[in-house]
Amino acid sequence: MNMIKTDILIIGAGPTGLFTVFEAGLLKLKCHLIDALPQPGGQCSEIYPKKPIYDIPAFPEVLAGDLVSNLMKQIEPFQPGFTLGERAQTIEKLEDDTFIVTTNKGTKHHAPVVAIAGGLGSFEPRKPPITGIANYEDNGVEYIIRDPELYRDKDVIIAGGGDSALDWSIFLTDVAKSVTLVHRRNEFRGALDSVEKVQELKNEGKIELITPADVVDVIGEGNVKGVSIKRGAEVFNKACDHFIPLFGLAPKLGPIADWGLEIEKNAIVVNNSLDYQTNIPGIYAIGDVNTYPGKLKLILCGFHEATLMCQSAYQRIFPEKRYVMKYTTVGGVEGFDGTKKEAPKAVVKAIT
Amino acid sequence: MNMIKTDILIIGAGPTGLFTVFEAGLLKLKCHLIDALPQPGGQCSEIYPKKPIYDIPAFPEVLAGDLVSNLMKQIEPFQPGFTLGERAQTIEKLEDDTFIVTTNKGTKHHAPVVAIAGGLGSFEPRKPPITGIANYEDNGVEYIIRDPELYRDKDVIIAGGGDSALDWSIFLTDVAKSVTLVHRRNEFRGALDSVEKVQELKNEGKIELITPADVVDVIGEGNVKGVSIKRGAEVFNKACDHFIPLFGLAPKLGPIADWGLEIEKNAIVVNNSLDYQTNIPGIYAIGDVNTYPGKLKLILCGFHEATLMCQSAYQRIFPEKRYVMKYTTVGGVEGFDGTKKEAPKAVVKAIT
Ligand SMILES: Cc1cc2nc3c(=O)[nH]c(=O)nc-3n(C[C@H](O)[C@H](O)[C@H](O)COP(=O)(O)OP(=O)(O)OC[C@H]3O[C@@H](n4cnc5c(N)ncnc54)[C@H](O)[C@@H]3O)c2cc1C
Ligand SMILES: Cc1cc2nc3c(=O)[nH]c(=O)nc-3n(C[C@H](O)[C@H](O)[C@H](O)COP(=O)(O)OP(=O)(O)OC[C@H]3O[C@@H](n4cnc5c(N)ncnc54)[C@H](O)[C@@H]3O)c2cc1C
Repeated sequence: MNMIKTDILIIGAGPTGLFTVFEAGLLKLKCHLIDALPQPGGQCSEIYPKKPIYDIPAFPEVLAGDLVSNLMKQIEPFQPGFTLGERAQTIEKLEDDTFIVTTNKGTKHHAPVVAIAGGLGSFEPRKPPITGIANYEDNGVEYIIRDPELYRDKDVIIAGGGDSALDWSIFLTDVAKSVTLVHRRNEFRGALDSVEKVQELKNEGKIELITPADVVDVIGEGNVKGVSIKRGAEVFNKACDHFIPLFGLAPKLGPIADWGLEIEKNAIVVNNSLDYQTNIPGIYAIGDVNTYPGKLKLILCGFHEATLMCQSAYQRIFPEKRYVMKYTTVGGVEGFDGTKKEAPKAVVKAIT
Repeated sequence: MNMIKTDILIIGAGPTGLFTVFEAGLLKLKCHLIDALPQPGGQCSEIYPKKPIYDIPAFPEVLAGDLVSNLMKQIEPFQPGFTLGERAQTIEKLEDDTFIVTTNKGTKHHAPVVAIAGGLGSFEPRKPPITGIANYEDNGVEYIIRDPELYRDKDVIIAGGGDSALDWSIFLTDVAKSVTLVHRRNEFRGALDSVEKVQELKNEGKIELITPADVVDVIGEGNVKGVSIKRGAEVFNKACDHFIPLFGLAPKLGPIADWGLEIEKNAIVVNNSLDYQTNIPGIYAIGDVNTYPGKLKLILCGFHEATLMCQSAYQRIFPEKRYVMKYTTVGGVEGFDGTKKEAPKAVVKAIT
């Protein structure tokens, strides 16, 4: 069995988890991140990548998606590992006080420190109420688009009426053989651009629109062969290779709630007067996922929590060492990839 | 007597004090800042404006000076007031639990909440050991250049061997009638660019260089008429209108140390498990100036501390109101200047 080893295992690759990699890296600690989503960025990437945030310090305005790209660029020198599209499911404490975290797909991770940066929980898709749909999952039914290439030259039916359904319908017209969009109303809710673009593609015959209608059944044996659609009193079948219901993702604290951590109002209680450690030594909780008196669920708060947490993790991993902080401006940033950034040095030079 | 009134009086216009204006503004609280320096930005502006910082979240690299400009831009809608070039000297608590803070120049400020964001203290110039120099201060002897226009068409003697002395010598060649630079060594310490530029201006006769030498006396009656310079065994007089010793600024906690606040290792003890309040209710301490278990003197920490502090200040000012946080992305930012920033709204629109 393959085992991923790291110094700090971070559960959740939202802004808090990502910045943890940077602060850990300054302390020469390596990080690996697990996220249920196929991409890093947490809520910023999944819910509002194209919306501006105004309260990130020193950014009068930044798109949530750009914030995530900036963080990815900032942590690059510290070469974080990623287990994406998998949910951290179980945790086991070994005799030497280290932890093994296993995902729903069986991937195992081993680390002396676990930082839970799980936000509001792992994002789980809202599923349509179709009996037996679970049998088709990953055999033609997908709730999240991980790799658009899967749909190349296929017949695809998307269901939903929000930004995801609109944007993926647009995107897949260039990839799939055919794109059909089913929605239970005539009205769509999303960015004006996207709604107008779908109207245009529909007019050009590149997207087939079926509204107001619901997909009520999946047809096939093993693999999806088509779906059954109900519009008003009429029910008809339509052939397809993939059925993609995009009804949004809802975060669920999920398995972490059963790890023996102290939970309050769906969040993990931490010691905010020191290091954001939970009631289990060696497990920290930072960002939206934690709670303490006065807690604010804001991005900038996760950054500070991550920074203090890394100091404590360092002491746990190297109890005998004494860390002396150096400003990045003075000490520079030495990546694990051999890169070094540093401020130009002053010279001492005679003027004659 | 003129009295400046505000909701949160911030002592120190470093990055922490500046960002406080933004977080307070979101809560509709107005701020006024006092700083001993002539410009905002604290250590970033005074000590290393042209150096890169690498650990501001989501900035892989940002010059300290740019960080400050970004913060100034971000807080602009909240129209902060500034009392610059004055040191907060005394504090008085009134019967209604509000405060009056008076500067060394007698300017009075009145507010229900005081946030001390004083960093390592108010920056005070290192002065040369010349007896009686205090008599000439602001009459031809200046330790900080507040307004370069003061030197237009004047004869100026600068003393010092670091970046400030180099950079101001360069700058003033375009303003002053003559610029003389006195330094006790032949070697200067600064950015390579600056050292080379001074060499060039010296070669062109635009800067007169006197090294290795010390200014040992100031000459004049009331106003400066010249200085006395010692080079080796030789002592000679040189006429000038201004003598500007630029030997660096050193921060001193200063008068704040006598305000009855609990002090530890030259920093103000705060309750970090809640709201960064000091032992005097209504007085908070945030950023480099405070201390608590695990404290790190980093810019990003001040940002989080400021944010939590503002929530507490709001409760103090409006004990009967209940504040409901709204994400900036959702609620936008409404400036006191009538501006409003907000994310483009989603539309609900039929596709036909
Ligand atoms: C519409 C909207 C607007 C917002 N506007 C602002 C704003 O203007 N300013 C601001 O500061 N904040 C804003 N926020 C809040 C901000 O997005 C969150 O504070 C921030 O994303 C929290 O970051 P995080 O890293 O702690 O958690 P998240 O971003 O929630 O990331 C947590 C990640 O952990 C993963 N995860 C959880 N459990 C598991 C598990 N068991 N296994 C694997 N993965 C797991 C999740 O899939 C998720 O990707 C807004 C939020 C929304 C929804
Ligand atoms: C060379 C150098 C490199 C650094 N590199 C980094 C880095 O890479 N990353 C990082 O996070 N940090 C770095 N720092 C530290 C960073 O600059 C400080 O953490 C930050 O400036 C603290 O901000 P502040 O607003 O709390 O205080 P300050 O920036 O110190 O500002 C405090 C202000 O308060 C004023 N003040 C104090 N008392 C009074 C009074 N009584 N009356 C009026 N005004 C008063 C002072 O004049 C000053 O302007 C560096 C510092 C230095 C010197």
